[in-house]
Amino acid sequence: MDKELTQLKEILAEVDDLSRVSALLGWDQQAYMPKGATEARGQQMGTLDRLGHERFTSKETGKLLASLQKAAKGLDPDSDEARLVKVTAKRHERAVKVPSAMVVEKAEITSLAAQAWQEARAGSNFSHFQPHLEKVLDWTQRFAKLFAPVDHPYDALLDEYEPGMKTREVQAIFNSIRPKQVELIKAVAAKLQVDESFLHQNFPEKSQWEFGREVVSAFGFDWERGREDKVTHPFMTNLGYGDQRITTRVYEDYLNPHLFATMHEAGHALYEQGIPKEMARGPLYNGASLGVHESQSRLWENLVGRSKPFWNHFYPKLQKVFPEQFGKVKVEDFYKAINRVAPSYIRVEADEATYNLHIMLRLELEIDLLEGKVAVKDLPKVWNERFNAYLGVTPPDDAKGVLQDVHWSYGLMGYFATYTLGNLISVQLWEVIQRELPDLEKQIGKGEFAPLLAWLREKMHRHGAKYEPQELVQKITGSKINGDAYLRYLKTKFGEIYKL
Amino acid sequence: MDKELTQLKEILAEVDDLSRVSALLGWDQQAYMPKGATEARGQQMGTLDRLGHERFTSKETGKLLASLQKAAKGLDPDSDEARLVKVTAKRHERAVKVPSAMVVEKAEITSLAAQAWQEARAGSNFSHFQPHLEKVLDWTQRFAKLFAPVDHPYDALLDEYEPGMKTREVQAIFNSIRPKQVELIKAVAAKLQVDESFLHQNFPEKSQWEFGREVVSAFGFDWERGREDKVTHPFMTNLGYGDQRITTRVYEDYLNPHLFATMHEAGHALYEQGIPKEMARGPLYNGASLGVHESQSRLWENLVGRSKPFWNHFYPKLQKVFPEQFGKVKVEDFYKAINRVAPSYIRVEADEATYNLHIMLRLELEIDLLEGKVAVKDLPKVWNERFNAYLGVTPPDDAKGVLQDVHWSYGLMGYFATYTLGNLISVQLWEVIQRELPDLEKQIGKGEFAPLLAWLREKMHRHGAKYEPQELVQKITGSKINGDAYLRYLKTKFGEIYKL
Repeated sequence: MDKELTQLKEILAEVDDLSRVSALLGWDQQAYMPKGATEARGQQMGTLDRLGHERFTSKETGKLLASLQKAAKGLDPDSDEARLVKVTAKRHERAVKVPSAMVVEKAEITSLAAQAWQEARAGSNFSHFQPHLEKVLDWTQRFAKLFAPVDHPYDALLDEYEPGMKTREVQAIFNSIRPKQVELIKAVAAKLQVDESFLHQNFPEKSQWEFGREVVSAFGFDWERGREDKVTHPFMTNLGYGDQRITTRVYEDYLNPHLFATMHEAGHALYEQGIPKEMARGPLYNGASLGVHESQSRLWENLVGRSKPFWNHFYPKLQKVFPEQFGKVKVEDFYKAINRVAPSYIRVEADEATYNLHIMLRLELEIDLLEGKVAVKDLPKVWNERFNAYLGVTPPDDAKGVLQDVHWSYGLMGYFATYTLGNLISVQLWEVIQRELPDLEKQIGKGEFAPLLAWLREKMHRHGAKYEPQELVQKITGSKINGDAYLRYLKTKFGEIYKL
Repeated sequence: MDKELTQLKEILAEVDDLSRVSALLGWDQQAYMPKGATEARGQQMGTLDRLGHERFTSKETGKLLASLQKAAKGLDPDSDEARLVKVTAKRHERAVKVPSAMVVEKAEITSLAAQAWQEARAGSNFSHFQPHLEKVLDWTQRFAKLFAPVDHPYDALLDEYEPGMKTREVQAIFNSIRPKQVELIKAVAAKLQVDESFLHQNFPEKSQWEFGREVVSAFGFDWERGREDKVTHPFMTNLGYGDQRITTRVYEDYLNPHLFATMHEAGHALYEQGIPKEMARGPLYNGASLGVHESQSRLWENLVGRSKPFWNHFYPKLQKVFPEQFGKVKVEDFYKAINRVAPSYIRVEADEATYNLHIMLRLELEIDLLEGKVAVKDLPKVWNERFNAYLGVTPPDDAKGVLQDVHWSYGLMGYFATYTLGNLISVQLWEVIQRELPDLEKQIGKGEFAPLLAWLREKMHRHGAKYEPQELVQKITGSKINGDAYLRYLKTKFGEIYKL
């Protein structure tokens, strides 16, 4: 078995190298690449993705896996080796269904689509993006069919990002929380609105940037193994061992977007910086799923970064950076302002009470697109109608509506649901952490995050992608993914702020 | 033949994609990569380089080439197709001699060496770099042996960068110019030295950066197909069609390094931006050689950028950017200052009269290292001794001596001679350009560079790597590479400045 495992690891190292390099190309495309390189970049990504796919789906890999699956029966099923074989075998089973030509095609389509999306969003011009999105959708529909028969065609997409989760399962969770979230939002709307006008002042870019770095450095972000760059749409990317990069954007007229996105993306990076080096160059060197990943970003962004103890510590520092803007604003008012509940257009800037509604809208639309019930050309109209139905407001333009997210331009359909799952998991974890770290609030109030990070590393990060999301959440919290903890959290937090 | 040519082009496209992506990894490593990623980056580059090498040296490629070489006999020998086959066949013949394992080994050695060099240079600590350089040299010695028998072991290295050139040929050219350059430097040294103290004032980074961009924009650098970033050691890199990036550095206490490096690197980029798209994704999508490439960078840096007409146009603009620094300095004195001849430590900052001596030193040392006549550990001592013998001064530390260049850390041995060849070619070209564009000086004096660029595009850039350097220089100038024009140029220019 040892020899075969070594052979498999060599193949996986090559496949992983190609995929990390492809991620670097993506990072560069968002952060630095000149526009004229769009076509060449698509071709390069196509070549890398094809080579990785061919190698991973080769007969050699298949044979090794078949033999190793048998041999692994003698191992501790939770050992790194047994899990590596299991996770790889599942990925392999999916990958062999996808022809190489489709892999190249996706890279080429999405490289052009990513560029078109940037331009379309900048000019709020959906028609510029439409033909690209049509190609992405067409590709996605063909992709989903490769996995038939499935309970639901969307399962094929979801499994890519949330291994083992089913569409019906996600819909059941969403249905269980939707009415209570809507009820809460209505209760809040009946109350006096919180003033957050002081968040919309002039905040020079450099000061925002430095304050954000101070915060995430305190969290434990390792700058020797990561960096931060400016992009249109923030993301985190793992480019291989020792290289977890975050990207953010800055609006000089609004404090929140950069500040909370920095914490959010750093939360993702902290997860991957905590995966052991031994897992590098293989499929375990990843988060368990995107939902689990999102639980880490939301935990740092919301449960830490929008909490009272956090701001008791950091608010005086923020006041020093922006004395004119915040000199006369009390920490209690600042806390309320950053937690204000109000319908808004942009998902990534949405408050914790309305955020999930943004996701539910996207999940429904993706399912409708996939099933052909909604045509791409009608998306802006349908988006705005449903948005209004959910949140009571209509986006003023497509840049603030259907064009706001980068995902579809990258071919990432089936992805959005993971954001809500991440919200739910983050609070499920938080309830356990609060029990196991009784001094947590005090520590956060002193700017000490090492105990929290150590807990996350020990309970979650060090496992990499060994476990499927439901398995991992069950292992840590004792329950499967569900919305109970999240609803309790919303009720307590916003009940206090809005005196419900 | 058409079918086979298409098949060959597909292979070459894949090989080219892998090599451009590897170049992006190198660019990122110099410009942005966090230190913690060094090992992973080496592994990734190793994977890419190995895959490219395996594909290029595969039996399939060999068979196609053998068949196409026969078929190409019926073609116009100067057609793109015939030249593609010829150039590819020569590269292939060299590549098949190199085992894959050595390709991976080089990527891994040099990735670590590049990091160590950065650190060693920053701390002027040669011993930190020494073990890495020993590995690079050992690799290079093994590499050179793969090509035996050759007239001179160094030929194997030189041919990588200057196809077709022999060590003896280069030595003959160098020997013919050395005594006359030394004589000129002595004559200059006997004269009153030019004042250039005003070049050493405080020049804020942002202003330097913007002025440099203004200049190279006027040259014709296309920012939609390129960009500029900050690094330790300036370079230009071609990342595929539409993506030619330059990198520079800024010293706030000295005007020259950033200004002339920007013109220099832009000169390289203008060459590659002028190669037709039809040549992209293959070996013709390159300069003819590094020497020919350097002729372009030196042409823009020196023959344009250190000329009187250029500064008649740009000096008033520079004075506007730095009114305190240059308000009282006359253009004549500025012109003399940027052309001051004096021994200096740093090659890239050397004047036109001493530059070639820096190169001759390096060529000799590389040959001695390759032949085992000098050991790596003795390099700092030998460097300083010979430097003093050539230039009459001794570097104060290794950062300003043996550690100044990035090349060896990248495994680029056999490369330095191309800089001097570039100097010579640039003036050979310039004599022809002056004849064919009689209004050239007037145009430059008005900041009009389009006619010059158009000439270069037509006579040189559009050919990509179709011709070997001697062939191309002969084709354009009517002579092989030689030092006559360069010596004439030095004598005229510095004879006037120093009244010799």
